[in-house]
Amino acid sequence: MLFYDAVNPAPNPRRVRIYLAEKGLSVPSETLSIVAGEHKGAAFLEVNPLGQIPALKLDDGGVLTESVSICRLFEAMHPEPPMFGTGPRGIAEVDMWMRRAELRLMVPLAMVWVHTHPFTARVVKPQYTEFGESQRPRVTGAMREFDRALADREYLDGKSYSMADIVLLSIIDFAGFVGIAIPEEQEHLRAWHDRVSARPSAQA
Amino acid sequence: MLFYDAVNPAPNPRRVRIYLAEKGLSVPSETLSIVAGEHKGAAFLEVNPLGQIPALKLDDGGVLTESVSICRLFEAMHPEPPMFGTGPRGIAEVDMWMRRAELRLMVPLAMVWVHTHPFTARVVKPQYTEFGESQRPRVTGAMREFDRALADREYLDGKSYSMADIVLLSIIDFAGFVGIAIPEEQEHLRAWHDRVSARPSAQA
Repeated sequence: MLFYDAVNPAPNPRRVRIYLAEKGLSVPSETLSIVAGEHKGAAFLEVNPLGQIPALKLDDGGVLTESVSICRLFEAMHPEPPMFGTGPRGIAEVDMWMRRAELRLMVPLAMVWVHTHPFTARVVKPQYTEFGESQRPRVTGAMREFDRALADREYLDGKSYSMADIVLLSIIDFAGFVGIAIPEEQEHLRAWHDRVSARPSAQA
Repeated sequence: MLFYDAVNPAPNPRRVRIYLAEKGLSVPSETLSIVAGEHKGAAFLEVNPLGQIPALKLDDGGVLTESVSICRLFEAMHPEPPMFGTGPRGIAEVDMWMRRAELRLMVPLAMVWVHTHPFTARVVKPQYTEFGESQRPRVTGAMREFDRALADREYLDGKSYSMADIVLLSIIDFAGFVGIAIPEEQEHLRAWHDRVSARPSAQA
């Protein structure tokens, strides 16, 4: 097994690193430089033609991609402690919070990143900057939804730290890199962010 | 339990209906009219403040949202026949194909829908039409990735009809509604579409 990794602020490979740290698992890895374009180079495109990190090469030569799916593989191999919820409702809730983080928060954040940021301007031509800017309030609006949800709970699923918290943490920190901080008044989300950032796994 | 549903072409509630049909399950439901704006009306906003369909009201009054998460609840309650993969790798692959369908195909399709379609023009102001049009080739490009993947397999995970096929079917049919057909030369994706559309569950 070989895990293809990239350094922060890339949010997707970080999810896998945090997950592995929480589970106490260790996997051989190779770190590629996104800044140097190694994820679009010939060597890595042979591994993952989509040119996306993370990827996991399996012992039979097969390749898995998608951060959460790679973690689901490890979860099925090492179920304890459970990170994807327990029982029908717990499983559904962790999945729901992950989907909301991806679809309601990460999607508009990605649009801000791709269409307004100087870093992406080097490769994204044209940037639709007016559209990109219009997505900024959507990002803080989605943050507000999470802030409200966290008013009465320590972690997203209301039970324990889960994969949903990992996904949200990776996105919130990426938002900070893009220049969108958690608004001052979102005290529940800020307290949650302090809480999850204090876990040793957050250093991953 | 009460399932809040909406008629086609809404792709997300349809996924739950197809899933339930495949599993032979039946759940009491209420169908809301998106055209009449019932999903943004006071009555439904009390159920789901996000104003999104589908939603599932549970017997204790709790509410689950997100199409795939609702299906994961039913899957944990009724595991046979498995629709989310079996074994670590099978579970990871079904999840990976679902994520690719959502993130690589549905996201640009949603942008075309929101920013170029006359139907959404009534509520989306402003539409960023130039940006929206730029996403059209991304939709057919993502379709091509699925076309290639399906060259050597009947279903996305390479084993059997799964939730990943349901998600992709719902998106491809929604693309057709938006005016983006599967390109003629994508013969593997077209054959897959014929195959999955011939299943009785596709009428759901």
